[in-house]
Amino acid sequence: MSQFRKPDRQERRRFLTVYGRKAVLEALADRQMDCRILHLASSNRSGGVLQDILDAARAKGLECREHSREELARISRNGRQDQGVALDVYCPAMRELDDYLAALPAAPQRLLALDGVTNPQNMGMVIRSAAAAGIDGVLYADRGNPALGPLVIKASAGTVFRAPLLRCQTLFQASKSLCQNGFALYRLQSRGTRTLFDGQKFADRALFVLGGESDGISRELSELPGENLSIPMANGVESLNVAVSGALVAYVAATQKPAKA
Amino acid sequence: MSQFRKPDRQERRRFLTVYGRKAVLEALADRQMDCRILHLASSNRSGGVLQDILDAARAKGLECREHSREELARISRNGRQDQGVALDVYCPAMRELDDYLAALPAAPQRLLALDGVTNPQNMGMVIRSAAAAGIDGVLYADRGNPALGPLVIKASAGTVFRAPLLRCQTLFQASKSLCQNGFALYRLQSRGTRTLFDGQKFADRALFVLGGESDGISRELSELPGENLSIPMANGVESLNVAVSGALVAYVAATQKPAKA
Repeated sequence: MSQFRKPDRQERRRFLTVYGRKAVLEALADRQMDCRILHLASSNRSGGVLQDILDAARAKGLECREHSREELARISRNGRQDQGVALDVYCPAMRELDDYLAALPAAPQRLLALDGVTNPQNMGMVIRSAAAAGIDGVLYADRGNPALGPLVIKASAGTVFRAPLLRCQTLFQASKSLCQNGFALYRLQSRGTRTLFDGQKFADRALFVLGGESDGISRELSELPGENLSIPMANGVESLNVAVSGALVAYVAATQKPAKA
Repeated sequence: MSQFRKPDRQERRRFLTVYGRKAVLEALADRQMDCRILHLASSNRSGGVLQDILDAARAKGLECREHSREELARISRNGRQDQGVALDVYCPAMRELDDYLAALPAAPQRLLALDGVTNPQNMGMVIRSAAAAGIDGVLYADRGNPALGPLVIKASAGTVFRAPLLRCQTLFQASKSLCQNGFALYRLQSRGTRTLFDGQKFADRALFVLGGESDGISRELSELPGENLSIPMANGVESLNVAVSGALVAYVAATQKPAKA
């Protein structure tokens, strides 16, 4: 079984690592989560919650590995908050954008990207809404998106582990690749040439980009060919929370999606 | 001018009271807010932020009143957190549900109610989204909704002061009154007889009710005649954040609203 050999780099990109004693214990208790390897710091004192974690991992037949404190911090990527415990979780719906593009479905596609969204709570809430709406993929950039840590996981209500995340290096490179593969780019802006609710159709292959809380969409992404969409606002309201805009875009995009070709 | 006489009870219901030094100073600096009376505890020490507050209030020509600590706590309704400072803000779009019903417009109406939503952040975010969407009124019950304090104000990004809030005693009584005035009741439930996105029309007069974070819609409201609406969810996602559901309902309801009769 795959959990008993060392995953190669490509495989590792399909895992998310949960850290912290409470988060790991909760993950082990969640039957929907495909937990694989438990990592422990050799400096951990035994007993208490740690014993509960070990018991839960053993009951699931998981491999448990011990590491030096420094090596564990490298695995969790957050030595300050991992409390000596990390857990690899397999995410069946997460993959590399390149793999997605290599086998691009003929059916209409709706993708979502969050450009410069730094608030983990907003990131988590949008992932949850996008997964619920049936968006085909949410871009998740190594640089530019917050790490999928405890705050994102909590705000996503755990959906991050089964959301269709498409991993990429940067959103700009990913957007360019998608455009080259026939995707139309729709940028959410305060001033758009059309509104999200005008009932017009979107292209069969559509990438929707939302900007961050303070700076909006980055300049380089603004300069790619594409259309600017706005969300109409009444009563002098100047903006919506990113999590709210993301949910509106996800549901409108997904529900206006043509039936599969 | 009205700010120099004591408002009667009906008038007072069109005011929200901001409290706490930082919140009051921010309100005084906001040109969109119609600040009326500054209330101070006589026990306050002068200087510092308090002097900034007094300066800002005087620059606006506001009436400043001094009260005993106990009387100020009665005005702020939060003696623990008011820091000896409260500010009455006039909310032009807020009114009694009874007054709204007494002059019910002939044009189609879209109202929103949050039943048992206790999280102030969710309440504030829904008010912001509903105001932006152009919902005709958000019910605001004295019993059952969180007080419109600093957390609601912050989450609403200040829109609470210009949102079309309809004040009522309880949501159940309000919903009954609305039904008697020809409103159809649409309850958001996990299992609905139709979905929010099925493209079917809603009644000209429509009240949409969302349930709270944990207990959903109360039993008495569930037993009123009405229709159950659901939001479709993919990928095994079981629920959405209330703030997200509220925004989806607000925008779908407002954008599906027939043109004015």
